[in-house]
This record gives sequence, C-alpha cells and structure tokens, in this order.
Amino acid sequence: MDVKHIAKQTSKTLISYLTYQAVRTVIAQLAETDPPRSLWLQQFTSRENVQDGERYLEALFREQQDLGFRILTVREHLAEMVADYLPEMLRTGIQQANRQQRCQQLERMTQVSDVSVEGSPPPESTTD
Amino acid sequence: MDVKHIAKQTSKTLISYLTYQAVRTVIAQLAETDPPRSLWLQQFTSRENVQDGERYLEALFREQQDLGFRILTVREHLAEMVADYLPEMLRTGIQQANRQQRCQQLERMTQVSDVSVEGSPPPESTTD
Repeated sequence: MDVKHIAKQTSKTLISYLTYQAVRTVIAQLAETDPPRSLWLQQFTSRENVQDGERYLEALFREQQDLGFRILTVREHLAEMVADYLPEMLRTGIQQANRQQRCQQLERMTQVSDVSVEGSPPPESTTD
Repeated sequence: MDVKHIAKQTSKTLISYLTYQAVRTVIAQLAETDPPRSLWLQQFTSRENVQDGERYLEALFREQQDLGFRILTVREHLAEMVADYLPEMLRTGIQQANRQQRCQQLERMTQVSDVSVEGSPPPESTTD
C-alpha cells in the first residue's frame, strides 16, 4: 500500500473538489450581481468538465480570464477555511459511515438467519 | 458562502475517494493471494459505481460480505494514515496550483499583447 502516493492523489482530488465548489460559489455570487454572466458560467461549466479542475481553469482563462482569477482566489479561500477541520471531519466521518455499514449488514445477516436456518422445514404456504 | 456545508460536502467527497482507494488496495492485495477474487472484485467495481462509496458498499455487502468488511477496515486505516497530512498538503497544493495557473495566464497575456497591440506599429526592438 503506497500511502504517500494515496495521500498525494487524495489532495489532488480535494483540490479539484474545492475548485468545483469555488465555481458554484462564483455562479451564486454572480446570480446576485450579474445574472447574464452567472448563466454564461453555468453553461460553460456544463460544457467543460470541472472534474479535472486544472484543465477546466485553463479553458476558462482562455474565454473569461477575470472569472479564472476570481475562481483561483475563491478556491484558495475555501481551502483556508476547511483545511484545519478536515482531519477530524474525515476521521469521525469514516468511523460513523463504517459503523452504519456494519450495523446494516448485521441487521441483514440476522434477518437472513431468521428465515433460512439450514435444515429447517420449508415454510408452510407462501405463494407469491 | 456556506462554509460549514462546503466543509461537510468536502469530507463526504473525501470518504468516497478513500473508499475507492481502499477498493483498489484490496484488489491489489487479492491479486497476490487470490487472483480469481481480485478479478471478481475488479469486475464488480466496474459494474457498480464506486463514486458513491456508501451505495457501492451496500451492493458489495449483498454479494460478498467479507470483502465489504475488509474494505471498511482498509478505508479507516487509510483515513488514519492521511488525515493529519491533509491540511498542509491541501494548502501548499492549492497555492502551487494557483501560482502555476497565474503564471501560465500571464505568459499567454504577454504573448497576446506582443502580437496584437491595436493600431500600434510593430515594436522596434526589445526582445526578452
């Protein structure tokens, strides 16, 4: 397990995700101040793939550079705001999600063993 | 800008991403110890969408519960390993990516103004 590589890839994914959130933020801000540009950015974003954040930004810079610069600023700001909370949120988030998955699975196993105990006679009627 | 909501969504995205990395890790481990199951998990993963980690796990639990439990353990382990590095990696990662985008854009702007200064005669000398 190459943890260093995984950490690097994880941070790349995070950056792309915050780019996407920055784009959404700017679209929402423009909807208040400049609706036609908000619409333009919305359409641009549905045309260009924002999953690869860096490529998306390069494309945006070619068309509307001030929006490009604005999104850089917003994503850096978002990163500053969320960075310190991430370790704790990730840890408790995964623990919670794991607990829930285990719980659900244990419930399913109990239900299964209730109805299909091996060697027991088939249920009397049940036509479906 | 709803930072709390963005932080929560970011941590959800992270959990899904680490689930995907856990799946890849288990596929690689099985390739060493039990190639047919590795292949099975690979095929299952290309069939089910791992982008929604929780749904993927629910589907996996219905088919091969021991693999489900194993992936829960691995993703929790991965989270433990990367969590503390994330704030720093995210900050420097975004700063680096932003610097690079700004640099590229400034280069493009310089090139454009070199060739298309409106109405002005071509520059006499100055090559840099």
